[in-house]
Amino acid sequence: MQAFRIQVPDKKIVPALVDKINNLTKPKGSLGRLEELAVQIGTIQQTLSPRLEKPQNIIFAADHGIVKEGVSFSAPEVTAQAIPNFLKGGAGINMFCRQHHFDLKIVDCGVNFDFNGLPGLIDRKIRKGTRNYLYEAAMTEEEFDRAIAIGAEMVDLVYSEGTNIISFGEMGIANTSSSSLWMTYLTGISLEQCVGAGSGLDKTGISHKYNVLKRSMENYTGDSSVPDVLRYFGGYEMVAAVGAMLRAAELRMIILIDGFIMTNCLLAAQKLYPAVMEYCIFGHQGDEVGHKLVLDYLGARALLHLDLRLGEGTGAICAFPIIDSAVRMINEMNDFKKAAVTKYFD
Amino acid sequence: MQAFRIQVPDKKIVPALVDKINNLTKPKGSLGRLEELAVQIGTIQQTLSPRLEKPQNIIFAADHGIVKEGVSFSAPEVTAQAIPNFLKGGAGINMFCRQHHFDLKIVDCGVNFDFNGLPGLIDRKIRKGTRNYLYEAAMTEEEFDRAIAIGAEMVDLVYSEGTNIISFGEMGIANTSSSSLWMTYLTGISLEQCVGAGSGLDKTGISHKYNVLKRSMENYTGDSSVPDVLRYFGGYEMVAAVGAMLRAAELRMIILIDGFIMTNCLLAAQKLYPAVMEYCIFGHQGDEVGHKLVLDYLGARALLHLDLRLGEGTGAICAFPIIDSAVRMINEMNDFKKAAVTKYFD
Repeated sequence: MQAFRIQVPDKKIVPALVDKINNLTKPKGSLGRLEELAVQIGTIQQTLSPRLEKPQNIIFAADHGIVKEGVSFSAPEVTAQAIPNFLKGGAGINMFCRQHHFDLKIVDCGVNFDFNGLPGLIDRKIRKGTRNYLYEAAMTEEEFDRAIAIGAEMVDLVYSEGTNIISFGEMGIANTSSSSLWMTYLTGISLEQCVGAGSGLDKTGISHKYNVLKRSMENYTGDSSVPDVLRYFGGYEMVAAVGAMLRAAELRMIILIDGFIMTNCLLAAQKLYPAVMEYCIFGHQGDEVGHKLVLDYLGARALLHLDLRLGEGTGAICAFPIIDSAVRMINEMNDFKKAAVTKYFD
Repeated sequence: MQAFRIQVPDKKIVPALVDKINNLTKPKGSLGRLEELAVQIGTIQQTLSPRLEKPQNIIFAADHGIVKEGVSFSAPEVTAQAIPNFLKGGAGINMFCRQHHFDLKIVDCGVNFDFNGLPGLIDRKIRKGTRNYLYEAAMTEEEFDRAIAIGAEMVDLVYSEGTNIISFGEMGIANTSSSSLWMTYLTGISLEQCVGAGSGLDKTGISHKYNVLKRSMENYTGDSSVPDVLRYFGGYEMVAAVGAMLRAAELRMIILIDGFIMTNCLLAAQKLYPAVMEYCIFGHQGDEVGHKLVLDYLGARALLHLDLRLGEGTGAICAFPIIDSAVRMINEMNDFKKAAVTKYFD
């Protein structure tokens, strides 16, 4: 795969950011996590007056060979059917994008359907779904590299449009299975703790999913290196998201992290380039069993806990107004001197 | 005090709301708390297509006689100084109001300062601050009734402007002390668990505050009835908020509940008229020690946990986009039939 140059933002600006925030007309620290966000964003952008420009959400979509093993509650054709709904504006993510003024791009990385040049869909189809990793690697090395490159390319596109804050979502029936496998290999947390209900499995369904994934692990003959695990068990849409996150961090963009699947894509990105974490804001902690565990592993604390489990980027974008508040706080609030208010503290 | 007629919304509409939500293009239940909010709001408004109209925040401001006993970290003059900052748009609440398109009204219920007809400030001053409840009742019965009426009057005003969703905030140095006293009397939770740092007290400061409040309780000779406790230990701004919440519920408005102080105002309102709870959405659970306890007592679960402790309505308004998302979800998302997507479930 291609190399990325991701730098840790220079922390020398932090005291000046903290000082500015402490002089706003409010008790010290009283805007809690908004203050932390303002420091993080000011540090990423190296300014006391940070800006959020042209937010965008990119959905990477692809199908999964493992779906044949009955690991998902939803029918496999839902991946393809969801695409026109995204393009027509009727999905959950569209509603959030309209509300928070996000542009939305939909990228077909490997959906098992011929869209025949459907207008609005960005066609980067690698293959009509991955191979079934119960028996063989989900993708070849060349396909893996292509998926990484597609993610990076999409970020270059939105960057050229003036975006400095980006979120990623996914559509791919069965992709919580890939996420659970990435998670168990990359964190060492037992598979059992990484497997959950996905879009709605009951206890029996989860148990079957667990058994399929366990057998997949038993059949795996790779070297357990990070790139090999990602390639063997990944989805095209997930590897594209990894590439996209790495490129976004290289370009010093703010990266909003969505739910269980995107958190595991970040986990993968972070294993390759730890500095990517500096650019991430975690939108939402969902119900999916392993999500809290992987967030804890990353030392991350999500902004929202609203029991969402829709994916598509919804959990990330739902948190956007909080990030916007943080930036508005540091830019718009008066300081004590200008407002002629006695400092709440000395 | 005046009487209110607060009705429990008719729940017959709930199954139709749930059915509509279950047919939107997403896995069943996958928008979590947004779905709960949509059901609550649809029930309040008795419609499958609820609307949020002209949101407003009202800040009630007043001073507290108890401040002389050194119970607050902030200087007492901050109450008066904050008012021009609100009116000029430089405070935390202004930034949130601009962001989420809330109108803002500032009501002087009893600030210890002559504003001399300051433009934009609604003058309903009852007295220049309450009396010191360490030694005597904070307000007379007549003043209590007036404060309730002022709150109701302000809600009538915003209702006449077309508002159907309202939040309340407060400005009044030392009002966490009144809140703690209301809380301990109305819930039976020990005073110690109800007292916290307010705008920034340290351990010694909290201990002093606790002792002052404990002595105030010892000196209290009232009958411990709800109205008497509210009157004896209350702030004008807090009693106004109680009246405002009751009137808003009577008018079937959605009421956003802010932090520790407003939650205790709702607690008071709920003790007088339990049905007020049906109209409430809890924006934020803050750091103040007793806030979680009073929310638990009310059976309430806040939408946000962002370590805010600014008051003014900020914790309520910060949660507004989530409520807006819920309403957009039920109005804007496609259903399976229209989108030609296979149901994620059967």
